[in-house]
Amino acid sequence: MKTGDVSELTLRRYPRYLHCLRKLKQSGLEYTSANELSRQLAVHETQIRKDLAITGLQGTPKIGHRITDMERAILTYLGWNKLRISFLVGVGNLGSAILGYDFYKETGIQIVAAFDTSEHKIGLAINDISIFGLDSFSKMAKRMKAQIGILTTPSEVAQKVTNLMVESGIKAIWNFTQHPLSVPSDVIVEDVNLYAGLAVLTRKLIAKE
Amino acid sequence: MKTGDVSELTLRRYPRYLHCLRKLKQSGLEYTSANELSRQLAVHETQIRKDLAITGLQGTPKIGHRITDMERAILTYLGWNKLRISFLVGVGNLGSAILGYDFYKETGIQIVAAFDTSEHKIGLAINDISIFGLDSFSKMAKRMKAQIGILTTPSEVAQKVTNLMVESGIKAIWNFTQHPLSVPSDVIVEDVNLYAGLAVLTRKLIAKE
Repeated sequence: MKTGDVSELTLRRYPRYLHCLRKLKQSGLEYTSANELSRQLAVHETQIRKDLAITGLQGTPKIGHRITDMERAILTYLGWNKLRISFLVGVGNLGSAILGYDFYKETGIQIVAAFDTSEHKIGLAINDISIFGLDSFSKMAKRMKAQIGILTTPSEVAQKVTNLMVESGIKAIWNFTQHPLSVPSDVIVEDVNLYAGLAVLTRKLIAKE
Repeated sequence: MKTGDVSELTLRRYPRYLHCLRKLKQSGLEYTSANELSRQLAVHETQIRKDLAITGLQGTPKIGHRITDMERAILTYLGWNKLRISFLVGVGNLGSAILGYDFYKETGIQIVAAFDTSEHKIGLAINDISIFGLDSFSKMAKRMKAQIGILTTPSEVAQKVTNLMVESGIKAIWNFTQHPLSVPSDVIVEDVNLYAGLAVLTRKLIAKE
């Protein structure tokens, strides 16, 4: 199945399921159901069943599912069961915050190096991730087969750094800048658009006014 | 019209339209069309017409729309034409990065104060926004009629700070923590879920493998 068949909204729900499953497991449970997830997450049960079916999980309605089976199905479907090498460019406040997350544990995405142009930052490390000069990017990305580029630079240099990432074999760019990126058709861009979230938030505020 | 009638996906598209309109205006244009936006943003023209109609914008297909009229219609629909007082709690790397954004110019959301529990941060300022002790939150929020709380604390204290925000009259919480927040039904929570974006990104990567 290609991603095109499944809506982004569906994909965006899976991490919430995983989060909930982990908490249920921690509370000592071995089995759970779409019904229980529905109660915990305020998502309709039918929706959850449908989402779980997409991952290939077989249902046993009476008993529910073994939690570890559910986790494995979702992780495999999202590709979070595999290591993916990731490089971050732009170690400002936002970049530093991103380096502080432990994405690897949950997603398999490991940030193995960070890059900046500032002499004051090169040679330092954040969360054990070393900061290199941007001129080392291409060689290191090719050698380590980096797949994912995390873009936390100022907007003004976003396209220039994107071009460098693409030339260096990066296959997906997680774009935290406001700049709309131009990339070849075989490169994925996932924009983190804070303004999109604010649009939802303020429109909901208006509806309550 | 209530927000419930319009999908979040639709709402999330408007900031991209605004961004594009601003660039067209800067390039010296006075009028533009759904067709032109479609070309620039790779969103289907029918979709754009539909989205613009929701804001109440009247179409004149031949000439297109005056760009300033389009901007005004979207800004009004999103409630971005009004000042909204916002307080941020948690001045770590992420909080500092958020304080660096100039949301006010585009959205009317003005971060007027930041709060932290660290003695080293209280009294400092970032981007001209002063940092106060958390014990000042309630009094200041009530006095300044703060509507929006931005939550960039560690997850462990997310619910505690949320309770404080709700008690202080905050009507919407922009949640950057991974913690699922419990709030009364009249309070809005908009989660910034980085893992949701990563789910989309890695699933698209798999589809190309």
